[in-house]
Amino acid sequence: MKSYLQMSRDELLSEFKAVDREYERLKALGCALDMSRGKPGFDQMDLSCEIFDLVGNSTGFKNENSIDCRNYGGLDGLTELKNLFSQILDISPKQIIVGGNSSLNMMFDTVAQAMTHGMGGEPWCKQNDIKFICPVPGYDRHFAICEYFGIKMIPVENTPDGPDVAKITELIKDESVKGMWCVPKYSNPEGITYSDEVVKALAALKPAAKDFRILWDNAYAVHDLYDEHDELLDIYDECVKNGNEDMVIIFTSTSKITFPGAGVAAEAASPANVARLKHRMSYQTIGPDKLNQLRHARYFKNLDDVKKHMKVHASILRPKFDIVLNELEHDLSGADIAEWTKPRGGYFINLNVLDGCAKRVVELCKDAGLVLTGAGATYPYGIDPKDRNIRIAPSYPSCEELAQAAKVLCVAVKYAAAEKLLSDKSF
Amino acid sequence: MKSYLQMSRDELLSEFKAVDREYERLKALGCALDMSRGKPGFDQMDLSCEIFDLVGNSTGFKNENSIDCRNYGGLDGLTELKNLFSQILDISPKQIIVGGNSSLNMMFDTVAQAMTHGMGGEPWCKQNDIKFICPVPGYDRHFAICEYFGIKMIPVENTPDGPDVAKITELIKDESVKGMWCVPKYSNPEGITYSDEVVKALAALKPAAKDFRILWDNAYAVHDLYDEHDELLDIYDECVKNGNEDMVIIFTSTSKITFPGAGVAAEAASPANVARLKHRMSYQTIGPDKLNQLRHARYFKNLDDVKKHMKVHASILRPKFDIVLNELEHDLSGADIAEWTKPRGGYFINLNVLDGCAKRVVELCKDAGLVLTGAGATYPYGIDPKDRNIRIAPSYPSCEELAQAAKVLCVAVKYAAAEKLLSDKSF
Repeated sequence: MKSYLQMSRDELLSEFKAVDREYERLKALGCALDMSRGKPGFDQMDLSCEIFDLVGNSTGFKNENSIDCRNYGGLDGLTELKNLFSQILDISPKQIIVGGNSSLNMMFDTVAQAMTHGMGGEPWCKQNDIKFICPVPGYDRHFAICEYFGIKMIPVENTPDGPDVAKITELIKDESVKGMWCVPKYSNPEGITYSDEVVKALAALKPAAKDFRILWDNAYAVHDLYDEHDELLDIYDECVKNGNEDMVIIFTSTSKITFPGAGVAAEAASPANVARLKHRMSYQTIGPDKLNQLRHARYFKNLDDVKKHMKVHASILRPKFDIVLNELEHDLSGADIAEWTKPRGGYFINLNVLDGCAKRVVELCKDAGLVLTGAGATYPYGIDPKDRNIRIAPSYPSCEELAQAAKVLCVAVKYAAAEKLLSDKSF
Repeated sequence: MKSYLQMSRDELLSEFKAVDREYERLKALGCALDMSRGKPGFDQMDLSCEIFDLVGNSTGFKNENSIDCRNYGGLDGLTELKNLFSQILDISPKQIIVGGNSSLNMMFDTVAQAMTHGMGGEPWCKQNDIKFICPVPGYDRHFAICEYFGIKMIPVENTPDGPDVAKITELIKDESVKGMWCVPKYSNPEGITYSDEVVKALAALKPAAKDFRILWDNAYAVHDLYDEHDELLDIYDECVKNGNEDMVIIFTSTSKITFPGAGVAAEAASPANVARLKHRMSYQTIGPDKLNQLRHARYFKNLDDVKKHMKVHASILRPKFDIVLNELEHDLSGADIAEWTKPRGGYFINLNVLDGCAKRVVELCKDAGLVLTGAGATYPYGIDPKDRNIRIAPSYPSCEELAQAAKVLCVAVKYAAAEKLLSDKSF
């Protein structure tokens, strides 16, 4: 395809007319498609349904420590699951807290605790103008937690190796900078895995704030799409080497291993942080749902079981990513109006369209029956300064729907680009 | 039995020797008994185990609204469970939020929200010296939440009809008094059900603080021990009549209906409060474990199902209460050294021993292998000013163990009383 940027005004007008016709044709089909959230599809959820046969009258309710998982207690989770998450996160089981169905909930509660009780220092709510570093584009729900608590967000652009460490090193000289969000493997939405150098540099940070915390959301720890997958360096080990063991709190879950709404979440941290988190939890709850933990413990005996299971997920997800990537390649390649990532894992394709066009693309898609993540959602306060970033979530729709959705997306990208270029008086 | 208070010193010395021998005999048996927490027993948990057959491949995962309960979403819970809790709490389903496995967690989060974001007014953490009214004796975990957040607790003695409303009416003239804990039916630990007059008076309160909240923990809403059971007046209706609809937030759960660690919790409140709570939740989580909600929805179609189920619980619990009550009656009646309640529901027997003896009784029991709730736990900051209140939880041990435990308890009560009286020089 010829570059839009190299077309004459007449060529572009003629292209716009063709794109407009195609857009109207697709719109007339009255689709109802959704690529807005990283939700696993039905076929993926069907994979784990044997889990429900593993806890019941015939199998019993006791774990390996003879705890009756139906009753109260067990604040920090079952031994078996501590061991499993220990293998997933490569950190001692003693440093793991296994919780309920939501790692987001654990992150929110961790920040809430820091606000009212601090992280070893003065409560954050008693200090003025707390700030967080937010690598961008990033995960909207992380940013929303900061917004809820009035934590000022400082966006830092990602490089292909992870967030810009030089920038971060400057920012942390300000002691009101208290933390940083990271999705270090197959990042949401770019699919970046932080390089060893970036992980080492982050672990070696010397923030002015002694209670600075890296919230390390390793949501996609085992979510590889290909056998040849990214490797993430263990940040906790690196932090220990740097005398920074309290600086990182790690989160993960089985939401995209078993069930999005009924998985098991976990957090891992230094002994001091774990004690601090458990202290709050001892006031907050008597304990998590241990029966759901037991289901997971019986279903996954070890990391190998998880890895085998994730290969089946990958076999379902790969074709979905391919449909979108092939359509992008086929429809947009060479047009110089979009760039996109080809992730090796995770749940998203990151699409950058022409500056100033992302909102328009999302709007055009919506009008044609395709819901995308809101433009700007991948930036703090919903403000993408270049209005160019769009997060594509290909997991939930069927392959047939995806093929249709990808066509709608591509034509919307072209429509918005042509419209924008044509409105430029100098063109 | 002759009153200890009417014995001569010699009579009491001789009684003490006999009690001491009996205590040493029981101690030598090396028991390991626990009446410390209101935990349902194995036999009770066995009642609901069919629930695990109700969600799985053969039964499907969709609720009545065709929501696949395995996936993300559904912030405030399934329609079916809103309807069920609506019947239990007699409040519109629209005003109910159905959550995870812990109503305590909902209470903690509600107070946490009030601290950082307020309840319609300024965040509580920005106001100095927040105070809560705490009817005593009461539930230690309620008091612990206040202690965690630095909320000053003001104890108010319960009458047989509920907390002392005249005292409360005075206290709420102070606008730093922001709330009040209540267990209004079969209260923990006294088993009191608030009279209609008390409920009406509470609902009609006009606190100086516009953001005053009654946290109404209706934990034992359907937990009757006898067919002839207590009736609790609907406080929400009364609040509405008084233009006070935002003043109460109601909590309950199935922890003592199905499973302590894997039940479903709910909260109910005015539309404005529900909106406020859901606003926070929308940042905190994507949604609760809907599969566990679905299990409960399929197991309990309506309130009648719950009531039938609770009759079976009662048939298991009644004999346990009776064993303890009979032993108390047999061993202590007439001795003038203890008073106890005969509750018609709930999970506890409240025992008041001679002033200054509760800690000693708990210690003596512990030394003889019986764990009781810590003396003082039923009061804010763990301080029972008269050191006389002991909470007895008869649900968890077997009947055989209970018979033994009740003997140990009674002999400890007598031991501590005799010891105390003998140490009194004027005796």
